[in-house]
Amino acid sequence: MDGVDFRRLWDELAPIGRAEAGGYLRFSWSDADLACRDWFRAQAAARDLRLETDRNGNLFAWWDPDAEAGEPNPAFGAADTSPRTGEAAPAARPDDDRRAVLTGSHFDSVPHGGAYDGPLGIVSAFLAVDRLRAEGAEPKRPIVIGAFTEEEGGRFGVPCLGSRLMAGAIDPDRARALTDTGGTTLAQAMREAGADPDALGPDPERLANLGAFVELHIEQGRNLGDAPVGVASAIWPHGRWRLTFTGAADHAGTTRLPDRRDPMLTFAFAVLAARKEARLADGLATIGRVAVEPNATNAIAAKVTAWLDSRAADAATLEAILSGFESKVRDRAERDGTGFAIAPESETPIVEFDTGLRDRIATLLGEGAASDRVPGGARERAPVLPTGAGHDAGVLAAHVPTAMLFVRNPTGVSHAPGESASDEDCAAGVDALAAVLRDLAC
Amino acid sequence: MDGVDFRRLWDELAPIGRAEAGGYLRFSWSDADLACRDWFRAQAAARDLRLETDRNGNLFAWWDPDAEAGEPNPAFGAADTSPRTGEAAPAARPDDDRRAVLTGSHFDSVPHGGAYDGPLGIVSAFLAVDRLRAEGAEPKRPIVIGAFTEEEGGRFGVPCLGSRLMAGAIDPDRARALTDTGGTTLAQAMREAGADPDALGPDPERLANLGAFVELHIEQGRNLGDAPVGVASAIWPHGRWRLTFTGAADHAGTTRLPDRRDPMLTFAFAVLAARKEARLADGLATIGRVAVEPNATNAIAAKVTAWLDSRAADAATLEAILSGFESKVRDRAERDGTGFAIAPESETPIVEFDTGLRDRIATLLGEGAASDRVPGGARERAPVLPTGAGHDAGVLAAHVPTAMLFVRNPTGVSHAPGESASDEDCAAGVDALAAVLRDLAC
Repeated sequence: MDGVDFRRLWDELAPIGRAEAGGYLRFSWSDADLACRDWFRAQAAARDLRLETDRNGNLFAWWDPDAEAGEPNPAFGAADTSPRTGEAAPAARPDDDRRAVLTGSHFDSVPHGGAYDGPLGIVSAFLAVDRLRAEGAEPKRPIVIGAFTEEEGGRFGVPCLGSRLMAGAIDPDRARALTDTGGTTLAQAMREAGADPDALGPDPERLANLGAFVELHIEQGRNLGDAPVGVASAIWPHGRWRLTFTGAADHAGTTRLPDRRDPMLTFAFAVLAARKEARLADGLATIGRVAVEPNATNAIAAKVTAWLDSRAADAATLEAILSGFESKVRDRAERDGTGFAIAPESETPIVEFDTGLRDRIATLLGEGAASDRVPGGARERAPVLPTGAGHDAGVLAAHVPTAMLFVRNPTGVSHAPGESASDEDCAAGVDALAAVLRDLAC
Repeated sequence: MDGVDFRRLWDELAPIGRAEAGGYLRFSWSDADLACRDWFRAQAAARDLRLETDRNGNLFAWWDPDAEAGEPNPAFGAADTSPRTGEAAPAARPDDDRRAVLTGSHFDSVPHGGAYDGPLGIVSAFLAVDRLRAEGAEPKRPIVIGAFTEEEGGRFGVPCLGSRLMAGAIDPDRARALTDTGGTTLAQAMREAGADPDALGPDPERLANLGAFVELHIEQGRNLGDAPVGVASAIWPHGRWRLTFTGAADHAGTTRLPDRRDPMLTFAFAVLAARKEARLADGLATIGRVAVEPNATNAIAAKVTAWLDSRAADAATLEAILSGFESKVRDRAERDGTGFAIAPESETPIVEFDTGLRDRIATLLGEGAASDRVPGGARERAPVLPTGAGHDAGVLAAHVPTAMLFVRNPTGVSHAPGESASDEDCAAGVDALAAVLRDLAC
C-alpha cells in the first residue's frame, strides 16, 4: 500500500466534525459522531462485512469465514441477549482457533483534538482487510473491525466508556447518569440519537469470543525515531486526583497581606511542585484544569479546585511523585493558612500487554512490512515502547490477549490539532496491521 | 441613637437578596435590587422626601427646604433634560450655600458579599435625617439621600457604573452593551426592569448643583482600632491588568516534560511573583480570577488568562510593583517557552478627598458624637485613614467636594459574608453622619 491509497479513504472521513477553530469536535452521540457511524456502516456494506451494534453502542463489522460458509460464529453477534448486570464472566468459548481477531479504535475526539487519534485505527482496519482480500488471503477465524464509543471521555468524562461497559468495568446506571457540560445525560444523548440506553451493560459472551484485539493508534509522543511503526509494551500506571485549596474570600483592595488566607498562592505552589516532583522521578505530572470561587478580579479566592494528572513507568515511581507532592503542598498550605485536600478520582494500574502477542508482532514486523521503510535496511524487531495514554486496548487487555501498533507522529503532539502522521507512515501502518491480521487469522 | 434603633430599620432591609449559601446576591436590576429600590421609595414616602430617579437609574430622596417653602431648587431634579452626550461640564450653579448636600451609597453586592457594604450608607442616611428632624434641625440647603446603581460591578463588570455615567466617565453606548455572565446586556436588564437604557448619559447639571457628597461606608480592613468611626483621606491608586499566558495544548499522558510549553507553570509563577512584589513594596496584589483553555484534566493547558489587581499608597509604589512583576514573569515565560502578555483593563489614579471637608469632619467628630463612645474619653480628631477600595465617592470627588465616613469592621472581612459591624458602632455612624449633615446643611 502507498500513501496515495491511504489518503483516498482517509479523505472521505476527514471533513466530518472538523472545527473552524482547528482540530475536531467529534463528541460521542453528536451529529459528527453519528456521521462517522454512518460512514462506518457504509464501509462495512461496501465490503460485504456483516454489521453489528452491540448493547453499548460499539460498532462491529464482521469478515466471518464461517458465515460465508453458512455457519456463523455461534456466540458472537447476539447483540442484546447477554445478561444486563454483573461482572463480565467467562462464557462458553468456541475453540481457540475459531475465536475472532478484533481490530479497530474509536471515532470520538477530545475538544479540538487531532485527526488521527482513534480514526486512524478504524480506517487502517478497513484498508488492511482490503489488502488481505487483494492478496487472496483466506481467514480461518473471523476478523472484526470495531469502533468503540466515547474512548476519550470528551463528552461524558469517563474515558473508554464503550469498552468499560462491555467489560463490566463501570456500572450501567452510573454510565446512564453521566452528564456533559450542557447537563445532558448519556441516556438522553443516546435516546436523541435513536439508541437504547436501557440496553447498556456488560457483554461477557462477546468478550469470551475474542481471540485477540490489535488496536492501531497514532503514537502520542516522539518516541519512534526512525521507525514508522512500533509495538506497545505497556500503558503506564495513571492517576487523577482532585485537589481542593480553601481559604477566606476577602476584598483584594482592603485586606492586608498578613491577614489573608489566599488559596491561590497554595495552588500556584502546587502547580510548580507537581512539575518538580515529576521531573525528579522521570515521570509526568500535569495540572490543566482549574476552577476558582468566586473568581472575581477584586476578590481574594475562597476556594481553588484543581486536578492533578500523573503517570510514571511503574507504580512505585507514581507513588513517589504523589507522596513528594502531597507533603510539600501540605507544608505550604500550613504557611499560607489555607486548607488542602487531595482525593483520588481514578487510579489505573499498569497494563502490560500480552507478552507472547507483543513479541510475535514485534518480530513479524521487524522481518516484514515495516522494515522495508527503515533507512539502513531491515531491523530484527519493530521498536517496542510504553505509552502514558489510556486506550480501549488497555481495558480489554484484562480479558483478551491484546496488542497495540503505533504509527509515527513527527510532531509528538497529541490531543491537539498539531498531531500529525505522513501518508507514507500511515500506509506502512496499514501494511503492518495487514501482516498481523494475516499472521493471527489466516 | 442606640443600637436598638439602628437594628429596627436595618432588619427591614436585611432579608432582601440574602443567599442560602451565605452573604447577599443583590445584582443591579435583579429582583433583589428592585426590591431594595421599592424599599427606598417607601422610606422616602414615609418621610415626605421627594423621590427622583435620574437618567442612570440612581435614586435620590430630597429633603428640600426651598421646596417646602414653595421654591424648589431650580437646577436639580430635572431628571431627563440634561444633554445626553459629552463630558459632564460645569453648568449654571445655584448660590454655593443653596447647593445640596448628598449622602448615601449603593444597594448592590458582589456575589455572596456582606450585608453592610453599600446598604449601611443608605440606611444610616435615612436614620440621620430622622435624628435631625427629631432634634428640630432646619436645613438651609437640600439634604439628598442617594442610592447609586451597580457600584460593585458585580453584574456588568464596571464598578461605580451609576456614578461614572452621571459624571460622564463612561460612554453610554459602552455601558448599554455591557453583559452579565448570562449574556444579558445592561440595556436588556434595564428594559426588563421597566427602566429606559436610552436615557443613560452624563448629568452635568445635577453634579453642578451638589455642594458636597458624604458617603458613609463599612470599613473594609481592621484599621480603625478603638474608634467606631473614621474619616477617609484618600483612595489608593488602583489598577487591573489582564494577563495572558499562552503555550501548546498537548496530551498530559504522552508529552515529555522537556517538550512541553505549559502556560500553567508561568501562571503559577506569576501568582507567587505578584504576592512577593506587593509584599516588598508594602502594597497589595491579588490574582483571584482565572480562565483556562481547554481546562481538561488530561490536557496541558493551551492558554491561561488571569487578572491582576494591584493597589498601593501612591502611584510610584504601584508602578514599582507592576514593573517588578512584569520583568520577573517575562523571564520565567522565556524559560518555560510560553507567551506572556499584560494589558491594563483599568487604571484609577489616587483620589485625595477634599482636605477642607475632611479636616472639618475629622475635627467635628473628634469633639462630638463619636468621641462619646471612645474608651478613655474624647479624642481631638476622628481617625483619618486611606482605603484601597473604590467607591462612588471616588468618582464624584472629581466634581464635588467629597468625604467618606467609615464604620468599624471588627473582622476586617469585606466582600464576603464575614463582614460585620456591631449595632452600637452603626448607631455611632448614624450620629456622626447626622452631625456632619447638621454642620454642612443646617
